[in-house]
Amino acid sequence: MALSIDFNGLTTTHIGSAGIGESDLASLKGATEAALASLLADHKSGKLGFMALPDDQSAAAAAKHLAADLTARLDDLVVLGIGGSSLGGKALFAALSHPFHNLLPASKRKGMRIFFPDNSDPSTFAGLLDVIDVKRAAFAAITKSGGTAETWAQLLLITEKLGTEASKQQVVAVTDPSKGALRAVSTAQGWKTLPVPPVIGGRFSVFTAVGLLPAAAAGFDIDQLLAGARDMAARCRNTDVWQNPGALVAALLFHFDTQKKRPMHVLMPYTDCLRETGDWFVQLWAESLGKKKNGGHVGPTPIRAVGATDQHSILQMLMEGPQDKVTMFVAVDAPRTDIKIPSGFQDQPDVKYLGGHTFHGLLSAEQRATAAALAANGRPAFTIRVPGVNAYSMGELMMLFEVATGIAGGLYGVDPYDQPGVEAGKRYTCGLMGRPGYEASKVELDARPPMDAKWVR
Amino acid sequence: MALSIDFNGLTTTHIGSAGIGESDLASLKGATEAALASLLADHKSGKLGFMALPDDQSAAAAAKHLAADLTARLDDLVVLGIGGSSLGGKALFAALSHPFHNLLPASKRKGMRIFFPDNSDPSTFAGLLDVIDVKRAAFAAITKSGGTAETWAQLLLITEKLGTEASKQQVVAVTDPSKGALRAVSTAQGWKTLPVPPVIGGRFSVFTAVGLLPAAAAGFDIDQLLAGARDMAARCRNTDVWQNPGALVAALLFHFDTQKKRPMHVLMPYTDCLRETGDWFVQLWAESLGKKKNGGHVGPTPIRAVGATDQHSILQMLMEGPQDKVTMFVAVDAPRTDIKIPSGFQDQPDVKYLGGHTFHGLLSAEQRATAAALAANGRPAFTIRVPGVNAYSMGELMMLFEVATGIAGGLYGVDPYDQPGVEAGKRYTCGLMGRPGYEASKVELDARPPMDAKWVR
Repeated sequence: MALSIDFNGLTTTHIGSAGIGESDLASLKGATEAALASLLADHKSGKLGFMALPDDQSAAAAAKHLAADLTARLDDLVVLGIGGSSLGGKALFAALSHPFHNLLPASKRKGMRIFFPDNSDPSTFAGLLDVIDVKRAAFAAITKSGGTAETWAQLLLITEKLGTEASKQQVVAVTDPSKGALRAVSTAQGWKTLPVPPVIGGRFSVFTAVGLLPAAAAGFDIDQLLAGARDMAARCRNTDVWQNPGALVAALLFHFDTQKKRPMHVLMPYTDCLRETGDWFVQLWAESLGKKKNGGHVGPTPIRAVGATDQHSILQMLMEGPQDKVTMFVAVDAPRTDIKIPSGFQDQPDVKYLGGHTFHGLLSAEQRATAAALAANGRPAFTIRVPGVNAYSMGELMMLFEVATGIAGGLYGVDPYDQPGVEAGKRYTCGLMGRPGYEASKVELDARPPMDAKWVR
Repeated sequence: MALSIDFNGLTTTHIGSAGIGESDLASLKGATEAALASLLADHKSGKLGFMALPDDQSAAAAAKHLAADLTARLDDLVVLGIGGSSLGGKALFAALSHPFHNLLPASKRKGMRIFFPDNSDPSTFAGLLDVIDVKRAAFAAITKSGGTAETWAQLLLITEKLGTEASKQQVVAVTDPSKGALRAVSTAQGWKTLPVPPVIGGRFSVFTAVGLLPAAAAGFDIDQLLAGARDMAARCRNTDVWQNPGALVAALLFHFDTQKKRPMHVLMPYTDCLRETGDWFVQLWAESLGKKKNGGHVGPTPIRAVGATDQHSILQMLMEGPQDKVTMFVAVDAPRTDIKIPSGFQDQPDVKYLGGHTFHGLLSAEQRATAAALAANGRPAFTIRVPGVNAYSMGELMMLFEVATGIAGGLYGVDPYDQPGVEAGKRYTCGLMGRPGYEASKVELDARPPMDAKWVR
């Protein structure tokens, strides 16, 4: 059973004048075909690498081999990475592990405990050192460029604690195969390494060692993950764009943003385990599409939510706030486990009707009810449906969004694989940190208007 | 030392034509004064209760007393609640506890382990039952109305597992003092209870037992929490609106939404421990202000982020995407702990400059650099500065946003204390669940247009 997408909630039939019809599809067709053709040409030429990753058995084999080695010798895996070097692995970990994996005793869990400290937040990192034994932990330093400041801050601390010899056994560098500071230091120090193919950007790297190593260490079936990704990549090579799920997602979200002034795209899975997949999607969609163009600025704003929890948070806004959003539900047909709700307190109408249903039954009813309520209110939404959350469906889902992002880049007319806007902040940071060569950035920063106390409360 | 807000990053001096000047403030003054006057009148009459909560010592005393009792007898506290019944407690727990509190052995942590399952997700709840001993856990069922479906599903399961006698010892109901199903059942069953004042809505309830009980059970200083809230409430009663931090936040965000077409308000604290405070803010801001008005729809969209992590996610969009956002930083002067970055690998320029700095130094430099980069790029942002994240500053911060929400309600011309838009979904859910009295909702739902397979991929 494969992932499917039900776009009915976007149509005029379901939501009236806010919706789309056949004529909208017709008007979108040429541009979508062009964007897809460009993506496929880049795929074929090898310029764009992410759609080919599931075909590379060697990366999976290397990740499995190393994960088995680490698991045999050590208790924990700490991922030293941030942004695209962390979000994919974190999404997989949340989606596929026991929800309290790190709290389970070793005998009851598959795989190592996994931690993703991300930030250079001292409280988080000091706290982490309280709960792991550095001598019994592996540290995967992940940075594509090899020079990420937050990751190096963590790695400098850890390698000092470990010392040179233990670092050879416990540090794994996941980085460019030849370039960058992490590769150079790894070679000099004799650390274990896994490569990130040069053609793959951080936010498209979940199917490289960046995502595969933590997934394998957590005990997941990464072959099934890649199989799902491979099958979705094949569906997304269909040149009949309206049979191509990646092209449809891209084209419809682009259309609702640019033609119907709905720039906010809310991803709302009805399962806790996809919360972090939402964070991964936010980076993918925001960093790829939020760009300068012809002196102006384009791109949608991704927002992550979780149902039913966020019915009690943002649903009021989705229902009655401004007409500026499209909601993407993810509905799960079969949960990994279900719980029957016992009958009780039958004199209370607010309670009585629940007995005999299940937790999943309630969650599914809420998803269906919320979709219907939005539709009845003329608010566009569509539903991605997965038979269950497993390694295969995660492969499908993540490849779907990656392809959609690539095609959306073509539709928006931007390069979805760069992020020039973050450089200014990096330069200023280097200036403030006194890095040689960044003196001019410090001067530029100091020349900014001073803080006027009149505006401080 | 008190929380302060630096609004310089919103001004024409700092960001050019996208910014505000004295004339904008002048044009906003009358409406802001009226909104504040209305809030203060409702505060005085008792119609609006949240600003008076910090003055109520009895709620804190009751929460402390009960928390001490539970802590003495039991290991864990499970909060059965969702939305406003969970987000405040969860925010405090994340902000003030050890970052891996639940992983610490009992001897090394203050207070009980605390869990917030929220959703009726069967995987989460079954997973929770794998890691707690039901016989050694307290269950705080929190629902203001007393009839929340997700919470009752969990409570029916737990009370069946506990049985009648153990439930009297281990269940605490936090609900309306007289109305609703949870109050009625609690009375009949002899469960322990704490009240939520009838005048307080869920998303404004963090300073009632809803937030205070979990905070006390986690070992936090709730007197300091209330002191911070009280001091901020006092500052927010200042009728000179430009000296009133709540009025300023409300007025400026309202102005950037409605006058400068920046409806998205990004809360980006530079510390991991405020991530869940972002989730709490999202509910508060979205559910209070996203409303129907005069046949139209108003309200901003809150977005939560965390720095520096999300520099590697949404910063590209904030810098170069559409001009539709205002960013609110939270900067922390002194972290609870800091870590020195060792020097190492001095031959690598990407690494060398980090040695000798600290984790907090890097994080602070990144915050300052990002603020400067946004400003240099003409993007509005302001900075809320706290001396440290502690119980007192959390009280200040959360009261600040609650007051700002109340005043923003006045400016937008909506009732910030209701959420009529969520009722349709609730009715449909009840219809789908076969609840007596909701047959018409089921009929209405079934009369929706059928799914057309033509739109499914």
